[in-house]
Amino acid sequence: MAVRVAVAGASGYAGGELLRLLLAHPNVEIGALTGNSNVGQRLGALQPHLVPLADRVLEPTTAEVLSGHHVVFLALPHGQSAAVAEQLGPDTLVVDMGADFRLKEPGDWEKFYGSSHAGTWPYGLPELPGARAALEGTKRIAVPGCYPTAVSLALFPAYQAGLAEAEAVVVAASGTSGAGKAPKAHLLGSEVMGSMSPYGVGGGHRHTPEMIQNLSGAAGVPVSVSFTPTLAPMPRGILATCSAKAKPGVSAESLRAVYEKAFADEPFVHLLPAGQWPATASVYGSNAVQVQVAYDSAAGRIIVISAIDNLTKGTAGGALQSMNIALGLEETTGLSTIGVAP
Amino acid sequence: MAVRVAVAGASGYAGGELLRLLLAHPNVEIGALTGNSNVGQRLGALQPHLVPLADRVLEPTTAEVLSGHHVVFLALPHGQSAAVAEQLGPDTLVVDMGADFRLKEPGDWEKFYGSSHAGTWPYGLPELPGARAALEGTKRIAVPGCYPTAVSLALFPAYQAGLAEAEAVVVAASGTSGAGKAPKAHLLGSEVMGSMSPYGVGGGHRHTPEMIQNLSGAAGVPVSVSFTPTLAPMPRGILATCSAKAKPGVSAESLRAVYEKAFADEPFVHLLPAGQWPATASVYGSNAVQVQVAYDSAAGRIIVISAIDNLTKGTAGGALQSMNIALGLEETTGLSTIGVAP
Amino acid sequence: MAVRVAVAGASGYAGGELLRLLLAHPNVEIGALTGNSNVGQRLGALQPHLVPLADRVLEPTTAEVLSGHHVVFLALPHGQSAAVAEQLGPDTLVVDMGADFRLKEPGDWEKFYGSSHAGTWPYGLPELPGARAALEGTKRIAVPGCYPTAVSLALFPAYQAGLAEAEAVVVAASGTSGAGKAPKAHLLGSEVMGSMSPYGVGGGHRHTPEMIQNLSGAAGVPVSVSFTPTLAPMPRGILATCSAKAKPGVSAESLRAVYEKAFADEPFVHLLPAGQWPATASVYGSNAVQVQVAYDSAAGRIIVISAIDNLTKGTAGGALQSMNIALGLEETTGLSTIGVAP
Amino acid sequence: MAVRVAVAGASGYAGGELLRLLLAHPNVEIGALTGNSNVGQRLGALQPHLVPLADRVLEPTTAEVLSGHHVVFLALPHGQSAAVAEQLGPDTLVVDMGADFRLKEPGDWEKFYGSSHAGTWPYGLPELPGARAALEGTKRIAVPGCYPTAVSLALFPAYQAGLAEAEAVVVAASGTSGAGKAPKAHLLGSEVMGSMSPYGVGGGHRHTPEMIQNLSGAAGVPVSVSFTPTLAPMPRGILATCSAKAKPGVSAESLRAVYEKAFADEPFVHLLPAGQWPATASVYGSNAVQVQVAYDSAAGRIIVISAIDNLTKGTAGGALQSMNIALGLEETTGLSTIGVAP
Repeated sequence: MAVRVAVAGASGYAGGELLRLLLAHPNVEIGALTGNSNVGQRLGALQPHLVPLADRVLEPTTAEVLSGHHVVFLALPHGQSAAVAEQLGPDTLVVDMGADFRLKEPGDWEKFYGSSHAGTWPYGLPELPGARAALEGTKRIAVPGCYPTAVSLALFPAYQAGLAEAEAVVVAASGTSGAGKAPKAHLLGSEVMGSMSPYGVGGGHRHTPEMIQNLSGAAGVPVSVSFTPTLAPMPRGILATCSAKAKPGVSAESLRAVYEKAFADEPFVHLLPAGQWPATASVYGSNAVQVQVAYDSAAGRIIVISAIDNLTKGTAGGALQSMNIALGLEETTGLSTIGVAP
Repeated sequence: MAVRVAVAGASGYAGGELLRLLLAHPNVEIGALTGNSNVGQRLGALQPHLVPLADRVLEPTTAEVLSGHHVVFLALPHGQSAAVAEQLGPDTLVVDMGADFRLKEPGDWEKFYGSSHAGTWPYGLPELPGARAALEGTKRIAVPGCYPTAVSLALFPAYQAGLAEAEAVVVAASGTSGAGKAPKAHLLGSEVMGSMSPYGVGGGHRHTPEMIQNLSGAAGVPVSVSFTPTLAPMPRGILATCSAKAKPGVSAESLRAVYEKAFADEPFVHLLPAGQWPATASVYGSNAVQVQVAYDSAAGRIIVISAIDNLTKGTAGGALQSMNIALGLEETTGLSTIGVAP
Repeated sequence: MAVRVAVAGASGYAGGELLRLLLAHPNVEIGALTGNSNVGQRLGALQPHLVPLADRVLEPTTAEVLSGHHVVFLALPHGQSAAVAEQLGPDTLVVDMGADFRLKEPGDWEKFYGSSHAGTWPYGLPELPGARAALEGTKRIAVPGCYPTAVSLALFPAYQAGLAEAEAVVVAASGTSGAGKAPKAHLLGSEVMGSMSPYGVGGGHRHTPEMIQNLSGAAGVPVSVSFTPTLAPMPRGILATCSAKAKPGVSAESLRAVYEKAFADEPFVHLLPAGQWPATASVYGSNAVQVQVAYDSAAGRIIVISAIDNLTKGTAGGALQSMNIALGLEETTGLSTIGVAP
Repeated sequence: MAVRVAVAGASGYAGGELLRLLLAHPNVEIGALTGNSNVGQRLGALQPHLVPLADRVLEPTTAEVLSGHHVVFLALPHGQSAAVAEQLGPDTLVVDMGADFRLKEPGDWEKFYGSSHAGTWPYGLPELPGARAALEGTKRIAVPGCYPTAVSLALFPAYQAGLAEAEAVVVAASGTSGAGKAPKAHLLGSEVMGSMSPYGVGGGHRHTPEMIQNLSGAAGVPVSVSFTPTLAPMPRGILATCSAKAKPGVSAESLRAVYEKAFADEPFVHLLPAGQWPATASVYGSNAVQVQVAYDSAAGRIIVISAIDNLTKGTAGGALQSMNIALGLEETTGLSTIGVAP
């Protein structure tokens, strides 16, 4: 049986990446594609890399257009998903690629997003403890943010195993596609090529409470996260450098053993052999996650570094992985662990 | 039936790209992988993006290792293929990704490569007139060079239709992977980022006689080609700007009609709608070719621009496409027209 | 005596580069800086690299603000310079960095810019035959376009010496700063990094008539130019690959001799030693031009390749060079031939 | 009086950048330029951006060649400076751009460099407490490492003022020129473009003890540093994200006040206005340092971010700044705070 899928927000980077992956999914039939300001345009003009869909035309993002599909993906600006989801009915699998349903604490939502909280849906990061069970059979999925995906996968095993003190420090570099396709002067090629710069420093980035939620859940105690995102001169990829003070008794060996066990059965997360370090190029366009751990005995810290493609595992690939679980399909269907390199 | 495939030269960029594609080919089973200086190393250390092959170990490039496969791909330095091919027997499909068997004229080979000519094999650019027939059932394939692929596809329709004078001018920009993985100072990231530079100017590039051979074949008369390659600050992609003086009576309409007809049934070559221009990002990692044509009435010239991924359609994807034809498989098997963008 | 200088359009790329150079000019005192939509903002927020000017505030672009300076540079959108220049009086040196006063033929202007022609000012490319004399003591300068600078310097010696047929073919790659600072989706870093693409193909680029004007002037007969610009993934730089059919009797030696003579006394144009090729990185941030020539005997064509920094020699550095001449200063004052590399 | 300067190691990136700056220094006369494997080559072939020195020829790195200069800069591989310096005599100002004389503790040197310690020279980071006095009149200068420059300037004020706990966490991104010009496969443009990757993780990078030395000196107690360097797809620049737990009572205001005071009189270090963040593009090719501070009250951490050009302030510019002090010249002579952007 073909799973009929609609994509709301098909002209942006998240929507485009999702369509790229859906085209390779053997069980999926691509239905309605909707946009906003570009309704009526050919997809070939907006997403010229999606050759098989070039002649598709964008429709308006309405419940009428989106109904009649088994799955509806929402790649909409924050705050717009709830109104659409309500009209889609409980039998439609709705996968929200925005932030609206990720946070459990209404206060966190209000503080970081400035509006009232829409609710909390099962969280689409299957590798987290307990996440897969919550996704099986669900009709609503909240896809994680790209940074929280990279950071939570890097640090949850250390917290789950009680190896790390409850204060994490994270510095992550992201490719520019994470900032979206809306034209802004500071995102021009002339500005970003040859430059690294931070933003949202000091705890202000909206992905911070999501990381705290995930790591606190793994640790069983509240974990603070000092998070600094930086913009890197590349279109795709996140490299997250995550660290925390080691609890007494931690050794390089015990640390590695915990990570080997945590990811032993994970199809997409790869703990690299000792001596090899993650690189975003290696996961370009793939759903794979590269992870490496180190114990700095002089500083007494655990360092975990992860690399993902922010658009694939960080957004659209993660969304598809969770859809597969929700629909009872093989989790890896239509998803690759092979990066496009060099 | 699984087609058992060996790859000689699995540690380079061409070999790595071929393996990336072979992993997605439903009829292929990957057999021996050979190297040279890196024999005995894990592929995961050399090609970290090829996760499913990470634990494979490189073997020496010998006839003994390569025998026992249905297909052997040779991604070897120029001049080394003939000796290997001879030992593989006439029933093995040998696909040479090097230059050794591309040229028909021994004099051209000797002038540009400085050694004696090994012979001529069926030419793996199926879109050229007559090429598909020569590939069906063959046991030997000469994969075209990356630049000749982009340039020949751009210009052959104009020459075949008699629209263009027999003097072509080509300026092409290539990503750095076309220059290979051997470390050289001028290919360091520090040197190439932020810089454009030409090389092989004035007719000296080894791909020139191959372009001349293809275009002269389409025209039925000798065509001269002034070819200037340039190195662009990107890992992949070729953008070829090709032009020739129009013959009397050519119009924008007649030109477009010829190109529409030439590529109407081609699965990988896409003549873009009027007003849209090729971009290498759109074909990143795909086997697609984007083409656009223009008629400059003031200068009296036909301009044809093509974009390919030099490693995919320009090397490994083109090789696989020709293998499919030779083996009687569907030509598009395992090959995508969907680029990884942005 | 300090030359008091105002800059209209100080927030864009051309204005910013001009200020970078003016800060290093020993005879200049920087006066009014004007903007448009960003009037009232600190320059430090708009041009954070210009540390010594960080606390300057942008004023409105009015004759009142701009009057009282010895020199006024106009870095305004096309079509806006004439109205400002008229109000500045005949004793003020007005240097227009836009296109308004470059073209001699009103018909060319109207065809390519769609408005009525404002006039023709002395042309600020001192290396062209006769150009220096016209610049000495002038009060009005039309700064050349960036592409015409690179292309005219590459080809005028061949045309002046009668070596080349009157049909030139030019393909040039430009960094993205040439497209300006106004945010547009196709100029986002995500779109341009890793991609080469053409634009204005087929004779439509507005710099085409300017090239034709310059080369026809050097040749003494009308020269046609087939010009294809491409956008390269780098912030700065133009690499122009220019060619024309050689007239009978041309040899590599005669060609080189002509170029050696043409640039022997030029402080900014460097004919590279045989075997070395221009690279845009070598002229990054400098007013230098690198040129190399080749004669392709098989194709019968002269190939000339030039590299400039589009913002320096291609815009602001060229403007300053011409200002120096007009004011009777040493032509090279405040201008460097040293690129920032790697 | 002209200061006669020799440069040992003129063909590498550090030597090239030093020459770029020396060419603009009004008191300097450039004397001998030495190399190693490229002795006898024209500098124009090795450093094509240094046009005024194109015809200089590299001499061997011997005491004979280097003697007879007022200043000798050593841009040599680690461990080679002592032998050269010994032969130069006590009246020559020797500026070592390598690591040999940076560390005070022989044990640190032996642990991180694996050879016996050559000694300790006055440390060329004038902005550190007490550093200027030690540089005045000295005949020996140890130029800091690029990362320690960025990190020490970012964190020393917080430690000097007693605001931060003695455990710093640093993640820094560097352009590829920091890795030098020797060709290595992982530094190829094909590998680094589009990719971020870490190296020397877990305390192994040789710049770690130098940071610890500087920050401990400012704090008056031993400070541990967890340092993770990453390689970014750009030729130049370091962005250092530095943090430490705040001591009780620290506020955003008290933090900012400390940094304003620390850099109030520094000609090259610029604390940005609140709300503006450092970007490496803004200091491209300049000796400026951009710094911004934040207090993350939720995580209880001080975050300081600095941006430098690794080759300028991080190496050659810093060396020249210290030379100016040692010679009694104005500290800023020949050094710019104006970046080349975009």
